[in-house]
Amino acid sequence: MASIATKFRPLFDRVLVKRLDAVKQSKGGIMLPESASKKIREATVIAVGPGARNQDGKPVPIDVNVGDRVLLPEFGGTAIQLDDDDSYTIFRESELLAKVEK
Amino acid sequence: MASIATKFRPLFDRVLVKRLDAVKQSKGGIMLPESASKKIREATVIAVGPGARNQDGKPVPIDVNVGDRVLLPEFGGTAIQLDDDDSYTIFRESELLAKVEK
Amino acid sequence: MASIATKFRPLFDRVLVKRLDAVKQSKGGIMLPESASKKIREATVIAVGPGARNQDGKPVPIDVNVGDRVLLPEFGGTAIQLDDDDSYTIFRESELLAKVEK
Amino acid sequence: MASIATKFRPLFDRVLVKRLDAVKQSKGGIMLPESASKKIREATVIAVGPGARNQDGKPVPIDVNVGDRVLLPEFGGTAIQLDDDDSYTIFRESELLAKVEK
Amino acid sequence: MASIATKFRPLFDRVLVKRLDAVKQSKGGIMLPESASKKIREATVIAVGPGARNQDGKPVPIDVNVGDRVLLPEFGGTAIQLDDDDSYTIFRESELLAKVEK
Amino acid sequence: MASIATKFRPLFDRVLVKRLDAVKQSKGGIMLPESASKKIREATVIAVGPGARNQDGKPVPIDVNVGDRVLLPEFGGTAIQLDDDDSYTIFRESELLAKVEK
Amino acid sequence: MASIATKFRPLFDRVLVKRLDAVKQSKGGIMLPESASKKIREATVIAVGPGARNQDGKPVPIDVNVGDRVLLPEFGGTAIQLDDDDSYTIFRESELLAKVEK
Repeated sequence: MASIATKFRPLFDRVLVKRLDAVKQSKGGIMLPESASKKIREATVIAVGPGARNQDGKPVPIDVNVGDRVLLPEFGGTAIQLDDDDSYTIFRESELLAKVEK
Repeated sequence: MASIATKFRPLFDRVLVKRLDAVKQSKGGIMLPESASKKIREATVIAVGPGARNQDGKPVPIDVNVGDRVLLPEFGGTAIQLDDDDSYTIFRESELLAKVEK
Repeated sequence: MASIATKFRPLFDRVLVKRLDAVKQSKGGIMLPESASKKIREATVIAVGPGARNQDGKPVPIDVNVGDRVLLPEFGGTAIQLDDDDSYTIFRESELLAKVEK
Repeated sequence: MASIATKFRPLFDRVLVKRLDAVKQSKGGIMLPESASKKIREATVIAVGPGARNQDGKPVPIDVNVGDRVLLPEFGGTAIQLDDDDSYTIFRESELLAKVEK
Repeated sequence: MASIATKFRPLFDRVLVKRLDAVKQSKGGIMLPESASKKIREATVIAVGPGARNQDGKPVPIDVNVGDRVLLPEFGGTAIQLDDDDSYTIFRESELLAKVEK
Repeated sequence: MASIATKFRPLFDRVLVKRLDAVKQSKGGIMLPESASKKIREATVIAVGPGARNQDGKPVPIDVNVGDRVLLPEFGGTAIQLDDDDSYTIFRESELLAKVEK
Repeated sequence: MASIATKFRPLFDRVLVKRLDAVKQSKGGIMLPESASKKIREATVIAVGPGARNQDGKPVPIDVNVGDRVLLPEFGGTAIQLDDDDSYTIFRESELLAKVEK
């Protein structure tokens, strides 16, 4: 069966990410202190769109790549269930806070 | 009788889609988990407009084609009844989340 | 007496349309299912303006022509009474949903 | 005494118009049916500004000329009393709906 | 003592004006009929800024000059007291309605 | 100890100003009549940023210089305490009303 | 273990800063007088993103560098806990008020 990454091509500047499991979260991971839930904000990039369009209509390549680990904002994004797995979310590139070295 | 695809030409960056029947939805389809209705969000592209205009007024070709399967957002779009069939909807290209391999 | 089309020249990207009579509406016409009134949304283009202006101020020609049949949105537009006929409305080009083959 | 047209030079994309008298309104004039007041929306252009500015700051010539008859929107504009005459109004060019042949 | 005009250099597209005295208002002056106060809207331009900036950051020269008589909007502007005189106001160029011949 | 002007480099189009002391305010200074507090609105420019960026991202040099006397708006700006002195404020260039000759 | 600066790469025009400890705050530091909490607004730049994009989509280099001391606004930013340290915050470049000499 084709992997989700190849099956799913986000449009415009959207990025499909898969949140890290709470367990696999290494020591010293990144958390948003003020959020009561202490929800882990790290995820892996699964698929990226062609990019937002500039004023001429040309796509501007997205600045993260498949496999990168990224830091998510506390809010935003559209949760997606792929192959019965709830940990996928679609964000706009501009919503992502940072790339984080594994 | 001319098919709907040829009879109907969306304007600007609008895209006419036809939602997949719940039955034909293959295993592992895409659903938006948080939406109570578990409504299937996949549809087929029936017709596309010339595209949004860039700052010079030139149309920017739409990034999906007739026959593509796309993932719809939970809200938005204008429902249209064509030849007494209710499953058609017009979306702006920028509202569509992703292309999905069949 | 000069026809309305020649008497009336919309400005900017405005389009003057005349709604189809309910009777003349052919089988399989286009209706917006969710609108209780089942109001026919089809109309004929009577006159078009020079177009919206791009960033340099140059008009961008309108994408519909006199005589085209178009699909109207459920809301918007300014109703106009011309020669005591109430079925005329002025829309912005960008409000029109699609061109529809007769 | 200098005529109002020469005394009064609108700025930017403003247009000075004088509403037609109700009496002089020819048969088959243009009225906005839904407006309870049945106010005549036609007026004559008295003076025009240099035009709105494009992104470089250059004025974009206005698309109506002194003497044209225009169709006014139901709302908007700034009423002006010139030489004790209340029928003058300043509109932005983009507020005017259409040019109408006399 | 340096005149106010030379002492005061507005920034960007701002224009310093001095409202005409009610008395000096010649017959047939311009009033905004609907404004209860019948406040005279005419003023003389005292000083002008370099102009608003276009998209490249270059100033766009202001379309009124020192000494011009202008028609003010009913609202807006920042009242300024210069040398204990309350009749000065700073407007943005785009707020001014028209130039008026004396 | 380095002077505040050299220690403090505003970013973008921000300008650091120091409000004139009420006492040093020369006769005929500039006050905003309608403001109850009759607060003196004049200040001296202490430091300026590189400027706002135009559409290409290039900075547009600020139109006031260190040492200029400027007229402040009644509201806006961020009060800053430097070396225990409360009379400093950071404004955006576009908030400043005018340059005023000393 | 890789330092936070190398581990963490902000996206777009975001800047990661670390707030100065209250103790290490030298005499004559910068405080926002009106803020009751007298919270120190100075921080050190830890990591910077590639920059915001101009209208063509090209990144505009950020105007602060790693190691610079900056003045923070009273509000805004996203607090981040890195390696169990709560004093990190992500700001947009345009939110930062000024660079401050140590």
